[in-house]
Amino acid sequence: MLAVDKAVAFAREHRAAFLDDLKTLAAIPSVSTTPAHKGDVGRAADWVAAQLKAFGFANVEVAETAGQPLVYGEHLAAGPDAPTILFYDHFDVQPPDPLGEWTTEPFTPTERGGYLYARGASDSKGQLVAHMKAVESFVKTGKLPVNLKYLVEGEEELGSPSLGAYIAKNKARLAGDFCLNGDSGILGAEVPGILYALRGIACFELRVTGPALDLHSGLFGGAVHNPANVLARLLAGLHDEKGRVTVPGFYDDVRPLEKEEREQLARLPQDEAFWKRGSGAPALFGEEGYTHTERATARPTLDVNGLLSGFTGEGVKTVLPAKASAKFSTRLVPDQVPEKIAAGLRAYFEKNAPPSVRWELVAHGGTPASIMVRDSREVRAASAALETVWGKEPLFYRVGGSVPAVGIIQKLLGVETLMLGFALPDDQVHAPNEKQHIETYHRGIETFIRFMALIAKRD
Amino acid sequence: MLAVDKAVAFAREHRAAFLDDLKTLAAIPSVSTTPAHKGDVGRAADWVAAQLKAFGFANVEVAETAGQPLVYGEHLAAGPDAPTILFYDHFDVQPPDPLGEWTTEPFTPTERGGYLYARGASDSKGQLVAHMKAVESFVKTGKLPVNLKYLVEGEEELGSPSLGAYIAKNKARLAGDFCLNGDSGILGAEVPGILYALRGIACFELRVTGPALDLHSGLFGGAVHNPANVLARLLAGLHDEKGRVTVPGFYDDVRPLEKEEREQLARLPQDEAFWKRGSGAPALFGEEGYTHTERATARPTLDVNGLLSGFTGEGVKTVLPAKASAKFSTRLVPDQVPEKIAAGLRAYFEKNAPPSVRWELVAHGGTPASIMVRDSREVRAASAALETVWGKEPLFYRVGGSVPAVGIIQKLLGVETLMLGFALPDDQVHAPNEKQHIETYHRGIETFIRFMALIAKRD
Repeated sequence: MLAVDKAVAFAREHRAAFLDDLKTLAAIPSVSTTPAHKGDVGRAADWVAAQLKAFGFANVEVAETAGQPLVYGEHLAAGPDAPTILFYDHFDVQPPDPLGEWTTEPFTPTERGGYLYARGASDSKGQLVAHMKAVESFVKTGKLPVNLKYLVEGEEELGSPSLGAYIAKNKARLAGDFCLNGDSGILGAEVPGILYALRGIACFELRVTGPALDLHSGLFGGAVHNPANVLARLLAGLHDEKGRVTVPGFYDDVRPLEKEEREQLARLPQDEAFWKRGSGAPALFGEEGYTHTERATARPTLDVNGLLSGFTGEGVKTVLPAKASAKFSTRLVPDQVPEKIAAGLRAYFEKNAPPSVRWELVAHGGTPASIMVRDSREVRAASAALETVWGKEPLFYRVGGSVPAVGIIQKLLGVETLMLGFALPDDQVHAPNEKQHIETYHRGIETFIRFMALIAKRD
Repeated sequence: MLAVDKAVAFAREHRAAFLDDLKTLAAIPSVSTTPAHKGDVGRAADWVAAQLKAFGFANVEVAETAGQPLVYGEHLAAGPDAPTILFYDHFDVQPPDPLGEWTTEPFTPTERGGYLYARGASDSKGQLVAHMKAVESFVKTGKLPVNLKYLVEGEEELGSPSLGAYIAKNKARLAGDFCLNGDSGILGAEVPGILYALRGIACFELRVTGPALDLHSGLFGGAVHNPANVLARLLAGLHDEKGRVTVPGFYDDVRPLEKEEREQLARLPQDEAFWKRGSGAPALFGEEGYTHTERATARPTLDVNGLLSGFTGEGVKTVLPAKASAKFSTRLVPDQVPEKIAAGLRAYFEKNAPPSVRWELVAHGGTPASIMVRDSREVRAASAALETVWGKEPLFYRVGGSVPAVGIIQKLLGVETLMLGFALPDDQVHAPNEKQHIETYHRGIETFIRFMALIAKRD
């Protein structure tokens, strides 16, 4: 029996235990953006580190950063002739808000209809634990065919603010042949795929202030510019009627889509019904001249993420609010530069904000988009592993989300990233009732096993 | 010694005790819009009722309504030849939010720099207690020169939703010669005035929904219309660039300002510096073609009162929100009709909301504007009382706020209302650090005493 078959057999025998492991991690509320959950992020880090130690990893550490901790560990027993993979993923999660819309508690992982429901069950604890279980399957039945360096962070949902500093200090330790990033997905439970392009992101907050304090809207309304009305006007002006962003220079650096790629994207199982079903929107809307898939994965956007002003409780309060604020983010495509987007926004607000209010634009940082090398040894191994497990050839696709780690690792370590994970498009990541498809989780473990075996082979 | 002079002397001797009485009522957090404060509104009602009983009022009751209770009581010992005044005021207050901006606790009345700081100290507990102390001054030194019927409600800050039903059921009991409304103010601590016009109001909430649930802005952004972006666009479109409201038919019924009235308004001590100082806004802004005072008191408005969408906590959450909502209100002038404004808004949203979202407009009801009779026996008595206490003639002015009770009482009881209260323009009503000027409170008590004596005299 081949080593890979022994590992696959082990994984199949331990499905229940492997799912329990995911539940254990998903039960930890490791919300990285919420200061009150700082201890929980640390508990998730400790759990990951304990797993790695149990599988024979060396130099395991929970490293402190300026923000949330990250976990490093290495398993180099495959020897110098075997490839060395830098495995990246994250154990932090998005806030579970709005809490009232969850059917079961976000941090009480619950099986229902073939899914495991929990915040982070899919993004990205399901993918992280799947890879760890692939590792465990090799270790418990023989030995790992590749050298592995684990780099698992606790700040991905914040945009990975501390990752770069850690990598910069540990370049030699982190050196490898390529990065395998588990924070990824496929096109459907029965549609394997390989993700080759991600959008970048730049996040902002606009704060508009007017009166020195909240005013009585009857006593002052009409003579004082209302910051909430001004905020609405400024936000409205960021798009034209055709859905294009009006920020100066916004499209200047956008790499146009070529005819051949547009044809490939048109073959994906992502028609109007797909996007309507996934979003639940009454009708789709986007930039004129592009398909829904192109709008969501290959064109830049500007979306409001949050609005807050005045009285938002039950009932009526006729206040003229002193301030109004909006959080918003732009999704970027190659070759847009976050800093140039911020400069364009600043120019827009300088031109359009009236003198009757004060405004402040906070730039929360950003990361450029990335496009993967598609004709490489790693992509061919991933493709073959997926085809073996699913019994069909994977499709190549883009995703509109952002994985800052990809850009940071390319820049600091000079290696390309292969995205290989198994989240499904309808997993409701970042939303209430996030879930992980359980069968896909187990197929993911098997795919990681086969991928490690394939990439270890000499050509 | 005349009865009026005895009463005035009594009030002057009891300044400390009279201020303590205001502190007692202001310490009760009678926030009518917040269900959790239901019991506190009841406690405020009980306190008012107990005072009336102590001053010899008959038929005192704390009447239950569909919402918050109101207090009735009558003192008819002046006999059939004396006038009967229906005194109206309210003991409920606005929510104290945002709590963090108060220097001292909103319901711990605190003296500082000649002011008493507390939510409701000015609006309208200061005015209500001032009138009760004027009553007490007559009762403790002799007898009241007028018949009084007290109608004090606990829902003014909600727009007086239950007042009409109570009045309709008690028309005979509430019959009087005119209504004296204490929920009013003067132009400055040294500038007595008589308020002769109020704006009406109509309150709304617009709820925009798009996706079935909050989405990952990377995975769906670009293909799905963002409800927060749509809300901003819809709100922005409610005004043109000259500060005029674009709602269909909005200005159709507006009674134009006449030249003579504009000249009178121009004489008020309300220049640009007054409105800037009062609001703290970096610059004023309003409808083209009108002065600041006209914009704030005699022209209709549309102000956003609250915005809420998506993630509003600390940090970044790159969500594409499922919904976005705005509370907003229009201030109305004679002869605008709240129902026609609601219909115009509905037409605007029907025309302008895109099919990519769903929307709902909730109309919270409204009340028309009102203009008082200026050449009447009551106004002359009020003017003389003010002139005696302040040593100068009062000015006539308009206020942009709304007092629904004025319209309700005119409609159901057929009597005009005299507005006579002593709040100052910078009392920060409805805002953090609301305050009552203590010297003005005492002058108010004396003015109420003199007014009651003057109105009791036969011509």
